Amino acid sequence: GRTVKLAVVAGDGIGTEVVEQGLAVLEAAVAGSDVTFGTTELDLGARRWHATGETLTDEDLATIRRHDAILLGAIGDPGVPSGVLERGLLLRLRFELDHYVNLRPGRLYPGVRSPLAEPGEIDFVVVREGTEGPYVGNGGAIRVGTPHEVANEVSVNTAFGVERVVRDAFARAQARPRKHLTLVHKHNVLVHAGHLWRRTVERVNADFPDVTTDYLHVDAATIFMTTNPSRFDVIVTDNLFGDIITDQAAAICGGIGLAASGNINPDRTSPSMFEPVHGSAPDIAGQGKADPTATVLSVSMLLAHLGLDDAAGRVERAVAADLAERGARVRSTAEVGADLAARVRG
Amino acid sequence: GRTVKLAVVAGDGIGTEVVEQGLAVLEAAVAGSDVTFGTTELDLGARRWHATGETLTDEDLATIRRHDAILLGAIGDPGVPSGVLERGLLLRLRFELDHYVNLRPGRLYPGVRSPLAEPGEIDFVVVREGTEGPYVGNGGAIRVGTPHEVANEVSVNTAFGVERVVRDAFARAQARPRKHLTLVHKHNVLVHAGHLWRRTVERVNADFPDVTTDYLHVDAATIFMTTNPSRFDVIVTDNLFGDIITDQAAAICGGIGLAASGNINPDRTSPSMFEPVHGSAPDIAGQGKADPTATVLSVSMLLAHLGLDDAAGRVERAVAADLAERGARVRSTAEVGADLAARVRG
Ligand SMILES: CC(C)[C@H](C(=O)O)[C@@H](O)C(=O)O
Ligand SMILES: CC(C)[C@H](C(=O)O)[C@@H](O)C(=O)O
Repeated sequence: GRTVKLAVVAGDGIGTEVVEQGLAVLEAAVAGSDVTFGTTELDLGARRWHATGETLTDEDLATIRRHDAILLGAIGDPGVPSGVLERGLLLRLRFELDHYVNLRPGRLYPGVRSPLAEPGEIDFVVVREGTEGPYVGNGGAIRVGTPHEVANEVSVNTAFGVERVVRDAFARAQARPRKHLTLVHKHNVLVHAGHLWRRTVERVNADFPDVTTDYLHVDAATIFMTTNPSRFDVIVTDNLFGDIITDQAAAICGGIGLAASGNINPDRTSPSMFEPVHGSAPDIAGQGKADPTATVLSVSMLLAHLGLDDAAGRVERAVAADLAERGARVRSTAEVGADLAARVRG
Repeated sequence: GRTVKLAVVAGDGIGTEVVEQGLAVLEAAVAGSDVTFGTTELDLGARRWHATGETLTDEDLATIRRHDAILLGAIGDPGVPSGVLERGLLLRLRFELDHYVNLRPGRLYPGVRSPLAEPGEIDFVVVREGTEGPYVGNGGAIRVGTPHEVANEVSVNTAFGVERVVRDAFARAQARPRKHLTLVHKHNVLVHAGHLWRRTVERVNADFPDVTTDYLHVDAATIFMTTNPSRFDVIVTDNLFGDIITDQAAAICGGIGLAASGNINPDRTSPSMFEPVHGSAPDIAGQGKADPTATVLSVSMLLAHLGLDDAAGRVERAVAADLAERGARVRSTAEVGADLAARVRG
């Protein structure tokens, strides 16, 4: 039997509620197999910060590194100044653990109502770069609070960083029926970064000759997300553009209550992290109203990353079946979780 | 009688086609009044660049400065390397003429089909900053083309630049029935720039106490654009975020064929520039297929900027009436222009 060591960061607000259900579904998915999950709960997030002023200590990080994967709920509450937990915890994890592939599927499941009048079939995946771009924290300000303040933010892009994520995206495109990759950037304005991305896609394409490619400026990408999302297969893009278009993608696919993500280190030099795209939603926390589906789909991605494709498939099919029959029924977080676990058990 | 000196940059592709109609409607709007427009056509864009290698000379700029306003069609063709005309001509005009307010209405006119299933009433305006942010051209790269390439892009934000556009946005919000202003940024990641924007909105709010404000991260803004665009009244945002969300806004309001914009210098130290949001569309150029409506709506904004509110109103009402009755009819660029001019004449 194989034991998988899972670090669990339930976090704040609805994070704890959805993670509880995610773990229940995970258990159901491996029950009866020779795989066991051993979980370590880490106390990270707003609660800890309020109590101790700590975001992520070196010791926390060392503990996390001793695990095979991470399941994260959501982080933050309105009492923490903006940026403290984002930069100090969430992004720090992505950077320290070198999660250079931020994988975000955009799929409209049958039965789910899209806000688009004619959504068509939507089934793409965004490969968002996770360790560079405007997210590097390479900014600063002078004369803060005076009429002469200047605040800069630097987007850093390297050949190394761009190539590895582009390669990953090509490989994913090659493994899909349509074998198509769209680069999203803004190379007519951000000429230096944009041309690096463009040249890299052109060059790496030689190693994946059966993958077709095209290019969209990020502004045009938001138009196609609205008018013709079926055109997308795999999208590769910068950290910030990826942040923006994946929220839009979640919206057209039925909302962030359904949007899963994986912060992946494809080289497996450190644990990858799976989390719903939504936040801690303090307005509905503690009421059992949160939809755990995005977390459960993130669990499916986690299982696939660990090579447990069977279990991953069963979890995703359980979600698909649940969504197909969901209709307008209102269920609690625990009810949805229990229904999904029951479907996984079969 | 008053003579308005108008610089006309028809540009490339469909630019020349839509500008011809825009000018015809402009003529119709002031016919019989004591206002005359004297136009100067400037040969700028891809054609000129191919012929001479020039984008915008100091002499061109000096000529333009001697005018009261600019009407621009569209710039670019696939034969010009990316960035050359954008940075060297279009953005150079915005920066040199200090167009710090890039005004982009998002309005769903009655009769226009939105790709959203339940669009509701959409009537907002985006005040996009036009002279700072990641658009400043403050980037660079080292070791280009090698495995050690590093390409940086710097977003520059100043108290001066942020305050003046925020003030303009507050004034616009105050003049509208709902008196609501939404700041769109990403202050949890771009903490230095984001906090400057946030503090500025809070401070300037004191001078506009009857305006309510809220804040959205840019990723969340794309969700609300999809699920509840009616929530927006005035949006103020950074140059790049504004670029992205205004294309999305155009999409939900029926497409960039209808999206107008003004690059405005509110201090009137140089001519403001009005242009459709769409590009030169080489794929349909020369076929009389382009919809001139976005240009005609830009003409309405131009007239309003010049204080010719009556004429501006007549042009906008002509467009609204035409859209209400348009249905699925297919008309040529010239036919739409002629119909709009006829409506303006009354
Ligand atoms: C919370 C925030 C730092 C984060 C991001 O911007 O990446 C979130 O929006 C996401 O998409 O995971
Ligand atoms: C052509 C390009 C430089 C421009 C921009 O990014 O501002 C365009 O997309 C726009 O929105 O006017």
